[in-house]
Amino acid sequence: MSFKLPRGTQDILPGEVEKWQYVESVLSDLCRRYHYKEIRTPIFEHTELFQRGVGDSTDIVQKEMYTFEDRGGRSLTLRPEGTASVVRSYVQNKLYGLPNQPTKLFYFGPMFRYERPQQGRTRQFVQFGIEALGSEDPGIDAEVIALAMNSYQELGLRSLKLVLNSLGDKESRENHRQALIEHFKPHKDELCNDCQSRLEQNPMRVLDCKKDRDHPAMKDAPSILEYLNDYSREYFEQVKAYLDQLGIPYEIDSNLVRGLDYYNHTAFEIMSEAEGFGAITTLSGGGRYNGLVEEIGGPESPGIGFALSIERLLMALEAEGVVLPIEEQLDCYIVALGDEAKKEAAGIVYQLRKAGIQVDKDYGQKKIKSQFKAADRLQSKYVLVLGEDELANKQINVKRMATGEQETIDIADVVEYMKKEFKGE
Amino acid sequence: MSFKLPRGTQDILPGEVEKWQYVESVLSDLCRRYHYKEIRTPIFEHTELFQRGVGDSTDIVQKEMYTFEDRGGRSLTLRPEGTASVVRSYVQNKLYGLPNQPTKLFYFGPMFRYERPQQGRTRQFVQFGIEALGSEDPGIDAEVIALAMNSYQELGLRSLKLVLNSLGDKESRENHRQALIEHFKPHKDELCNDCQSRLEQNPMRVLDCKKDRDHPAMKDAPSILEYLNDYSREYFEQVKAYLDQLGIPYEIDSNLVRGLDYYNHTAFEIMSEAEGFGAITTLSGGGRYNGLVEEIGGPESPGIGFALSIERLLMALEAEGVVLPIEEQLDCYIVALGDEAKKEAAGIVYQLRKAGIQVDKDYGQKKIKSQFKAADRLQSKYVLVLGEDELANKQINVKRMATGEQETIDIADVVEYMKKEFKGE
Repeated sequence: MSFKLPRGTQDILPGEVEKWQYVESVLSDLCRRYHYKEIRTPIFEHTELFQRGVGDSTDIVQKEMYTFEDRGGRSLTLRPEGTASVVRSYVQNKLYGLPNQPTKLFYFGPMFRYERPQQGRTRQFVQFGIEALGSEDPGIDAEVIALAMNSYQELGLRSLKLVLNSLGDKESRENHRQALIEHFKPHKDELCNDCQSRLEQNPMRVLDCKKDRDHPAMKDAPSILEYLNDYSREYFEQVKAYLDQLGIPYEIDSNLVRGLDYYNHTAFEIMSEAEGFGAITTLSGGGRYNGLVEEIGGPESPGIGFALSIERLLMALEAEGVVLPIEEQLDCYIVALGDEAKKEAAGIVYQLRKAGIQVDKDYGQKKIKSQFKAADRLQSKYVLVLGEDELANKQINVKRMATGEQETIDIADVVEYMKKEFKGE
Repeated sequence: MSFKLPRGTQDILPGEVEKWQYVESVLSDLCRRYHYKEIRTPIFEHTELFQRGVGDSTDIVQKEMYTFEDRGGRSLTLRPEGTASVVRSYVQNKLYGLPNQPTKLFYFGPMFRYERPQQGRTRQFVQFGIEALGSEDPGIDAEVIALAMNSYQELGLRSLKLVLNSLGDKESRENHRQALIEHFKPHKDELCNDCQSRLEQNPMRVLDCKKDRDHPAMKDAPSILEYLNDYSREYFEQVKAYLDQLGIPYEIDSNLVRGLDYYNHTAFEIMSEAEGFGAITTLSGGGRYNGLVEEIGGPESPGIGFALSIERLLMALEAEGVVLPIEEQLDCYIVALGDEAKKEAAGIVYQLRKAGIQVDKDYGQKKIKSQFKAADRLQSKYVLVLGEDELANKQINVKRMATGEQETIDIADVVEYMKKEFKGE
C-alpha cells in the first residue's frame, strides 16, 4: 500500500523550502519596520464566521469551503482567507480597547479552498497578509498599499503594476448598485447564470465576471467613480495624494471590484507584468472593509488590509529570473576513521554545534573516501579529519577548503579555533 | 451576533507571539547547526495514512482524529502528529534516493487532536519535530536525543530529566509480548476496558495505562530489557555509550513505552522537574521506528525522531521563571503637526522604513500631546518632530530619548542620519 498527497496540496522539500524561509524572513522584517505585529489564529473557525465575514454570496462560501462537523457536532471550516479570523480575534480579545491604535497586525499561514487545482492555484496555499484596524485615515490606506508593493520590491521584483479604485461608502455603493441593476436588467437573460444571481445579490461583481466580460453592456456600464458622494470622492483624492507623496505610481481601474462582499472605499490589486508569468496576472489585492468589525459583533471600527499568496509570489520571482541569496554551503564536516574515532568525533560535533557552528558527520558506516565525497557534495567550508594517528595524539586535522590550507591542532582547542575562524563571517 | 474561537483552540496575540517567534528562531538555528533541513507537509492527509502510520490501536486514531469528507467524497484527516506525514513525503518524493543520507528533516506546525481541553492540552497545538531517516547507527539515536535536550537547554531550561528505554527489535518485542500476555492473562478481568483490548492488540501499552498503574500485577510485570536479543542489547549499549561520550545524563525506565504502535529500539522522554509545573511532567518524547517506511509503501529504511509541543515548552519556561530576551522598544516615532506636515511625515516614514529602520506615526488625528504620549508608550528610542517651523525650513528635529539630546537637521539628510545612529546596534 502506498500513500500520496491529497489532491491540490504539496510538500515543500529541502532545496525549495529555503526560498520560503527567505521570503518569510524578508516579509517579517518588512512588518517589523512598518510596525505591524504578528497574530496567529486557528486553522479552523466556526462556519458561521466565514458565512458572515466573507459573505454568503461569494464563490468562496458557496462553493469552495472545507466544512465539516467535529465529534461534538459543531460545524467547523478550514479558513479560506485570513481577514475574517483576524477581525474575529480583534473583537473577541477586545484589541480595540488597547491604548496604541490603530491595531496593526500581520499573519502567515495556510488557507484552504476547494478549487480545481491548476498552476499557481492549490487547495492548500499560504497567505501573508496585514490588517490595520481602527483608523479611517487616508494615510493608513497608503501605508498598507506601500507595504504591499514593498513586499514584492524588497525581494527584487520590478515588473509590477498597482491598480487602484474606490468602491465608495455605503451611500455611494447603493446609488451605484441601483444604476447597475437598471443598466444590466435589459440584458439579464444574456448573462451567465452566476451573473444573473449576482445581479440580485451584489451587482458590482458582474463587472468582475470572466465569462461575461466581452458582453457589449460591459463597455458602457456605470462606473462607481461617477457615483461617489463628496466624502468618498475626497477620501479617494487623499489616498492618491499620499501615494503621490510616497512616489508610488498607480493606475485607476473603475472595474476593479475584489471578490469579497465587504470592501468599500479603497480597493487595489498588484499585477505582474513579467513576460511569461501566465494568464492570471494578479499577484494580490486588498482594500478597505469599514463595517466588517460590526458585522462580526464588535464596535464601529474601520479597517483595511491586504493579502498575498506566497505560491504566486514565488512564481513571479521565477518569471522575472530573480535569484534569492540563499546559503548552500555547510560550515564543517568531520571525517572519522575507526570506531573509537567515530565516538570521539561525535563528542567534537556536539561541542561545535553548541558553540554555534553547523557541523555534520557520517552515520552510515562510510569508508574514508566516501566521507570525503560527502563533505565535497555538501560544499563544506571546513573538513576536520580524525584518523588513528590524530586520535592517538589527541589531535585533529583542520582543512580550510577555499584555500586548501591545513593545520593539525589539539582536540582540546578545536572549539575555540573554529569559533575564531567563523567569527568574521 | 458575536463569534468565538472554536473550543480547544487559541489566538496568539502580540505580547505573547514574540515568545513563539523567539522560540522558533532558536529551534530553527539549532536545526541549522545539527544540519537538519525543514520540510512542510499539508495540514490534512488521506485518513488511511494515519490509520497505518500512527496505528489503528492507538487512542489518537480510535478517538481523537478530526476526520471529514471533502467535496469529492475522499476521507481526509487533519494531521494529529508529524511523523506519518514526513515519512509519506520521504517515500512519495523518493528522498531515500538522494546522495546525502541519512535524510535529516525538521518541521514546525499545527497538529489536531480532539481531546478534552485542559491546561497545556489544546485541540490545535504546535509541534516542533525532527526525523532522521535511512540510518541505523546508534550515533544518530544519540544525535536526535542531544538535539531534543538542547532544544530546552538553549532556551534556558535547567530542571530536565531524560528517561531512556529500549523496546528492542521485532523478535525481542514478540518474545516480550508473549511474556506480557501470559503475565496479565490471569488478571484480565481486573484491568480497565482499554487494557483488556490492549492485551490483545498491543500488550506493551498496558504498562503505560494511567488507570491500572497501581494494580499489583504491574510491579512484577516482565521487563522488555530482559527480553532484548543480542543485537538489540548491543544497540542499546552503544546508544548509552554515545550519550556518555556527549556527557548527557539519563535514567533507564523499562516501563517507558510511548503511545504510538511503531516504536522499536530506542525510546525516550524528556520530563520537567520544575516545581509547580503540574501533574503531567512529560515535555516531549521520541524514538526509533524501523519498519514504518515499509509500512507506508517505501523501501526498507530505518528511522528515528522526536517531537515537542511548543505550548508545553512555554509552560516549562514559565514554571522555571525563564525570561526570554525580547526587544520591546520601537526604533523611531514621528510627531507631525498639521495636514501638510502629516503628509511630509508619511514620506519620511516611508524612506526610513525602506532604509531598514522601524518607524511609526499617528493615524488617528491625535493632537501633539497625544502623539508624544504614544511615542512614550511605545518606548520609542528616537522621536522626530515635524512642526510648522521645521517644515517651512525643510528641517526636522531629532531627539535621542535615552540621553535627551536633540538636534535639528535637514529633512534631506534624515535617512543617512538615522542609518548612522542605528548602525552601531
